[in-house]
Amino acid sequence: MTEPLAAVDLIADLGARARRAAGVLAATDAEAKAGALIAAAQALRGAEAEILAANAEDLAAARAGGLSAAMLDRLTLTAERIAGMADGVAAVARLADPAGQVIDTTVRPNGLALSRVRVPIGVIGIIYESRPNVTADAAALCVRAGNAAILRGGSEAMCSNRAIHAAFAQGLGQAGLPADAVQLVPTTDRAAVGAMLAADGLIDMIVPRGGKGLVARVQAEARVPVLAHLDGINHVYVHASADPAMAEAIVVNAKMRRTGICGAMETLLIDRGYPQAEALIRALLASGCEVRGDAAVRLLEPAVGAASEADWDTEYLEAIASVALVDGVEEALAHIARHGSHHTDAIVAEDKEAAERFLAAVDSAIVLWNASTQFADGGEFGLGAEIGIATGRLHARGPVALEGLTTYKWIGRGTGQVRP
Amino acid sequence: MTEPLAAVDLIADLGARARRAAGVLAATDAEAKAGALIAAAQALRGAEAEILAANAEDLAAARAGGLSAAMLDRLTLTAERIAGMADGVAAVARLADPAGQVIDTTVRPNGLALSRVRVPIGVIGIIYESRPNVTADAAALCVRAGNAAILRGGSEAMCSNRAIHAAFAQGLGQAGLPADAVQLVPTTDRAAVGAMLAADGLIDMIVPRGGKGLVARVQAEARVPVLAHLDGINHVYVHASADPAMAEAIVVNAKMRRTGICGAMETLLIDRGYPQAEALIRALLASGCEVRGDAAVRLLEPAVGAASEADWDTEYLEAIASVALVDGVEEALAHIARHGSHHTDAIVAEDKEAAERFLAAVDSAIVLWNASTQFADGGEFGLGAEIGIATGRLHARGPVALEGLTTYKWIGRGTGQVRP
Repeated sequence: MTEPLAAVDLIADLGARARRAAGVLAATDAEAKAGALIAAAQALRGAEAEILAANAEDLAAARAGGLSAAMLDRLTLTAERIAGMADGVAAVARLADPAGQVIDTTVRPNGLALSRVRVPIGVIGIIYESRPNVTADAAALCVRAGNAAILRGGSEAMCSNRAIHAAFAQGLGQAGLPADAVQLVPTTDRAAVGAMLAADGLIDMIVPRGGKGLVARVQAEARVPVLAHLDGINHVYVHASADPAMAEAIVVNAKMRRTGICGAMETLLIDRGYPQAEALIRALLASGCEVRGDAAVRLLEPAVGAASEADWDTEYLEAIASVALVDGVEEALAHIARHGSHHTDAIVAEDKEAAERFLAAVDSAIVLWNASTQFADGGEFGLGAEIGIATGRLHARGPVALEGLTTYKWIGRGTGQVRP
Repeated sequence: MTEPLAAVDLIADLGARARRAAGVLAATDAEAKAGALIAAAQALRGAEAEILAANAEDLAAARAGGLSAAMLDRLTLTAERIAGMADGVAAVARLADPAGQVIDTTVRPNGLALSRVRVPIGVIGIIYESRPNVTADAAALCVRAGNAAILRGGSEAMCSNRAIHAAFAQGLGQAGLPADAVQLVPTTDRAAVGAMLAADGLIDMIVPRGGKGLVARVQAEARVPVLAHLDGINHVYVHASADPAMAEAIVVNAKMRRTGICGAMETLLIDRGYPQAEALIRALLASGCEVRGDAAVRLLEPAVGAASEADWDTEYLEAIASVALVDGVEEALAHIARHGSHHTDAIVAEDKEAAERFLAAVDSAIVLWNASTQFADGGEFGLGAEIGIATGRLHARGPVALEGLTTYKWIGRGTGQVRP
């Protein structure tokens, strides 16, 4: 990849600083890291006026540039949102530090005692869009696990991000952590993103946080390992044995609780043997959802529109669902294997055998039985927070929090063993 | 990446077949997979004559092509080596199946029961050089963990690999596993390697097995995650407190037991406070090792040659060691941080505090205290086998065996939970 030299040099410099800081962080104990995050949270609260002033600058430029109302909302900070951001950082400080945890231990016949011990990954790059709160959220998770972070936020939030970063770094510094533990890429030059994606050996992992365009670019270009998901084309399969009240509650919740999140249901598969299909479709319609169905579904309910082939591969992130009838678990599995995105899929069933077959055979990061797909979230999974949800197959899968920001090393303690 | 269409199409076809086979393997229980490997081992024993005949063809071509004696030895199969290969496959069958293991379980306050369950990764690509036994070894490990394998061996071993693969696949088939569970790329066209490296979405992970040229190409070009190590520039640091007899035994073993393996010591760091430095250097010389030292080391022993700057970054894989004197643990750590390859490093010390500082601060896959670096091996670590040693930071680190050939998924069992 060839990027303008300035961007490459800039990222090389940030990367070298981050590596040194990561060495210090790796040797910093859990309590000191937690204390530094508490100090960072305090500094964020103390910098409320500066952050709001910086945010006002971003908002003025965004309005002048004609940003959409949704984008403006994402960009907007208030005293309440800043307090929430600081609370979030303090909450991360209270999570257990994964670094130093012993995964397993074995003593070999020759007496060599071997352990796998969790250690920070090193340098994490975060590339994100308009939400300035990611600056604090992602930095806190990286530091808690002992990683240095290189943050590259959206150009429209640059002033806000600078103010948040300055406060956060000041808090870390007061607590004695290196200033380079969290760095903000100081330019809106898009070449810097390319340089980060190519920075193999400087950055150990990149987490993109934002829309599909951003994630697709990162996944396509990166030479550095990426932790992310592109789509959440999630299915709920209502088995013939499903309890109708439960099926209705789960389907409506999975689709309509919040339609814009990656855990929302996009496709409903109803078993031909399920006796309450019409009522289920009507419940979805009554919840305010547009329904696009195959021919069989449209016969059941005339208010259903026609689904095209593309619908089965579409993540609407809106109040729209595609609905198909399927013949049994195996046909549901085949549909999901063909159209799913390996994110979150659910079965509603009273039949345990059907449910266990579904749980075993669906190749997704999260597979649920009798629960809404909207639970796909690190907080809901008890992880305390999340850096993102991953649909790749290596390292970490599903909601990723502190453990996914660590790796391990083998530590062996001997008494003079040599290999025969 | 643009590769000739034929190679891209070939790998796309193999990949699609492998994906279907992986689906079947993922649903095959531990016993059935073990039985299939026992059948494959039996088939390898039964095909001894065919394999030896195929190997003779490869050897004749290799001799005509002027292959080195070392390469010829790696390529050569004998009845004994075939029996050893079959025994190896049978041994893998006896290892515990990681697929289906529950990593952890939690019940959320709302009653949703969540587990992380190990599952196969899917499709593993193995790219290797002259040793035909890798065909059986790597295939066995992939199948044991429930993965489909796409094997691409060296062109000089093509006849041998075909015969081994035919027997192995026949054994799997007799046991009822899909024929495409293990596929051999049926061409020596180098474009097929490029197509494998670019096969993101078709192949889930690539393991290169061979020399540095192969690994470097794979790491530089791959769009698919790679599990590998490029260098093993391993250090032994002899602390001031080291027991002299132990230090001598470990240093000579780490360097000289087998000089050509990736776990061999390449650089010896001797603390200035260690009183027996001269004797240690003489022991290394007496073992038949060439020693290249810095100025301080050369003052101690005139038989030591001069180390150039490049020596500190060199993996000799021969009876040569670079030796430097260092001032204390921190200087040793700085040397390793600058010149190491994150593979295996060891400290010899009686001082527990110095040892623990070293174990915590060295950022390598394996860090040892009072033991030889030559233990860096999956068998020695009790893993039963290894697909390779990884020095990357994500997914798996150090010796990688069956667990590293799996990922996990989240399985949630509810009773109708919806998200408020």
